[in-house]
Amino acid sequence: MKPYREMSRDELLQLKAELEKRYQEAQAENLHLDMSRGKPSVEQLDISMEMMDVLNSEADLKDSEGVDCRNYGVLDGVKEAKELLGQMSEVSPDKIIIYGNSSLNVMYDTVARAMTHGIMGHTPWAKLDQVKFLCPVPGYDRHFAITEYFGIEMIQVPMTPEGPDMDQVEKLVSSDPAVKGIWCVPKYSNPQGITYSDETVRRFAHLKPAAEDFRIFWDNAYCVHHLYEDQQDFLLEILDECEKAGNPDLVYKFCSTSKISFPGSGVACIATSPNNLKDIKKQLTIQTIGHDKVNQLRHVRFFKDIDGIHAHMRKHAAIMRPKFEAVLETFERELAGLEIGSWIRPRGGYFISFDAMEGCAKAIVAKCKAAGVVMTGAGATYPYGKDPKDSNIRIAPSFPTREELATATDLFVLCVKLASVEKLLEA
Amino acid sequence: MKPYREMSRDELLQLKAELEKRYQEAQAENLHLDMSRGKPSVEQLDISMEMMDVLNSEADLKDSEGVDCRNYGVLDGVKEAKELLGQMSEVSPDKIIIYGNSSLNVMYDTVARAMTHGIMGHTPWAKLDQVKFLCPVPGYDRHFAITEYFGIEMIQVPMTPEGPDMDQVEKLVSSDPAVKGIWCVPKYSNPQGITYSDETVRRFAHLKPAAEDFRIFWDNAYCVHHLYEDQQDFLLEILDECEKAGNPDLVYKFCSTSKISFPGSGVACIATSPNNLKDIKKQLTIQTIGHDKVNQLRHVRFFKDIDGIHAHMRKHAAIMRPKFEAVLETFERELAGLEIGSWIRPRGGYFISFDAMEGCAKAIVAKCKAAGVVMTGAGATYPYGKDPKDSNIRIAPSFPTREELATATDLFVLCVKLASVEKLLEA
Repeated sequence: MKPYREMSRDELLQLKAELEKRYQEAQAENLHLDMSRGKPSVEQLDISMEMMDVLNSEADLKDSEGVDCRNYGVLDGVKEAKELLGQMSEVSPDKIIIYGNSSLNVMYDTVARAMTHGIMGHTPWAKLDQVKFLCPVPGYDRHFAITEYFGIEMIQVPMTPEGPDMDQVEKLVSSDPAVKGIWCVPKYSNPQGITYSDETVRRFAHLKPAAEDFRIFWDNAYCVHHLYEDQQDFLLEILDECEKAGNPDLVYKFCSTSKISFPGSGVACIATSPNNLKDIKKQLTIQTIGHDKVNQLRHVRFFKDIDGIHAHMRKHAAIMRPKFEAVLETFERELAGLEIGSWIRPRGGYFISFDAMEGCAKAIVAKCKAAGVVMTGAGATYPYGKDPKDSNIRIAPSFPTREELATATDLFVLCVKLASVEKLLEA
Repeated sequence: MKPYREMSRDELLQLKAELEKRYQEAQAENLHLDMSRGKPSVEQLDISMEMMDVLNSEADLKDSEGVDCRNYGVLDGVKEAKELLGQMSEVSPDKIIIYGNSSLNVMYDTVARAMTHGIMGHTPWAKLDQVKFLCPVPGYDRHFAITEYFGIEMIQVPMTPEGPDMDQVEKLVSSDPAVKGIWCVPKYSNPQGITYSDETVRRFAHLKPAAEDFRIFWDNAYCVHHLYEDQQDFLLEILDECEKAGNPDLVYKFCSTSKISFPGSGVACIATSPNNLKDIKKQLTIQTIGHDKVNQLRHVRFFKDIDGIHAHMRKHAAIMRPKFEAVLETFERELAGLEIGSWIRPRGGYFISFDAMEGCAKAIVAKCKAAGVVMTGAGATYPYGKDPKDSNIRIAPSFPTREELATATDLFVLCVKLASVEKLLEA
């Protein structure tokens, strides 16, 4: 196929007429499909159903240390849950606090605590004139929502195939004491599926922040979420690298089983240095008597260890992989060579990131919506919902069935073409 | 028995020698008993074990509206959980937000939100020079810990047999715009077991706060925690009274199943006005995607409705009642007429409140501890841990077995006597 931008006006007009006809036909189908959120499918939820059987009325609900998990107590999680999530987080159990059902909630609480009480004795952020966070873009809308909610100024840093542009990160972090944090999804990033390179991780670990209370918010949401058995990304363990670099307190690492067992009924954790843990526990002991230990036990008895988690994730991958491939194959078949969009083929995670021609993302998403296919809002992958190039669209292939996904992707591709032609005709 | 204060010095000295001998004998027994926290006993936990069977791998985990409870979504709780906790909270389901496992956490988050974002558009408390909370005393240490943590000044208001001294509450609330809240445990209060009278509740509902963002923090922790079938306290429903009084937004009401099913693995909620709910949800949607819906479903399927909860609470009462009575009988038998302490016989809740002679509480608790019986720290029932009279001691009879409790209470009574004699000899 010829790139659209090389077409004559007449060719574009003719193409537009064809695409409009097809779009009208699609609209007539009355679709109701959703590719907007990183939500596991019913089929994926089904593979965890046996977790509902591991604890019953005959079960011993004592943990390995004899703690009755049914009762109050144990602020930071039962021993074997710390071991399991420690393995998942690739840190020793004594660097873990187990939380409730949501790592997003842990991240929110971490920012909230810094706002009201500061980090390790430093001035509460709420008392500072300015607090800034670096936001690698495109990124995760719920991260940006937290920092926006607390009035934290967000500074965009572009992603590269190796992770965030570290030249910019180093410059901003070392020069501006108002820069207090950076949001990272370091493995199979949301939405691009990029895994930070070893060099990127090491440069993070060697940062020399102007602010002593600068922290990296390392959201390792997709740590075990590979799509392929034989092609897996590898991420250096950041806490370890920070220790080696003499920066042990630099990172808060977040993790959860939300997309492993049941979203909303999983177990989340933070992994960080002893100093940070001590600081966090001062607050946690005021906030709660402890999280749901029965659910911690349920997860441990179901998965047993990290091998159990990996085996379980292979079942997820078997369901996810064909969906990702269906979307990517359609892109290849329908869009390759047209120069109206680019995408990355991820090896894990939950998303495919699509970059349309500048100024087309909103139009594409609107066209999809008008034909019954809901995409993540254009701009959502940028702070304040504003993509300066109006180009990036996050695609979440997990929730629809394969058939739905095929239909939705066909429509998406059609909308990309139509919006691109319209854009070129404007020029 | 003759009141101690009427004894001669010689009589007191002789009594002291006897008591010391008995205390030394008790110390030799090497006890390890705990009456410090309101923790259900193992026997109580056992009555909820069948809850572990209501959901298994064959169960349909859709709620009554067809929501798959295993997946993300539903910020404010599944429909039937709102119905169940609505019944428990005595409000309609549409005034409920279901949270995670801990109402303490909900209260903490409620204060934290007011600090950083203010209530319904008012100035965030963190930006005010002064924020004050009224604290009925004696009260719940974990409430006071939250307000202390956020640097909120705590003002004591004495409890009466009808609830907090409402003359003082009305005066302070209506005159000082820095007064933003009051901690209340209105039914079977912690630690006294007092239920607020109808008049008290109505006076609360008719408060005319100087601060528009004043809120009553109504911790209805023991709403269904009766000890007797035929002698139950009745508490007026505060939201209803507030509406009638034209003060619909005055109250946050908190509730949980922590001491109904499993502490730490229960379900908590807030009940409040539509305006407050809207205000809260703005924040909640940033903090989380939703709480544990599977656990919500588990609770609903186990208890079914409020009758199921009441039936369950009768089982708890059957275990708790003899423990309360054992403590109270020992007090009657050993302390009546000595004028060295007073106590209230509660009809529900988790505690017995004991008022020793002024200046004796710390000594009593220390003596108990030195003989192997852990009590709640003296002063814990007052803000900043400082009981101005050094008199109040909270007794939690729930956790020990009846035998342990008998031993512990005997020791406690002995320590009360000994500390009182020592105090009188000082004079």
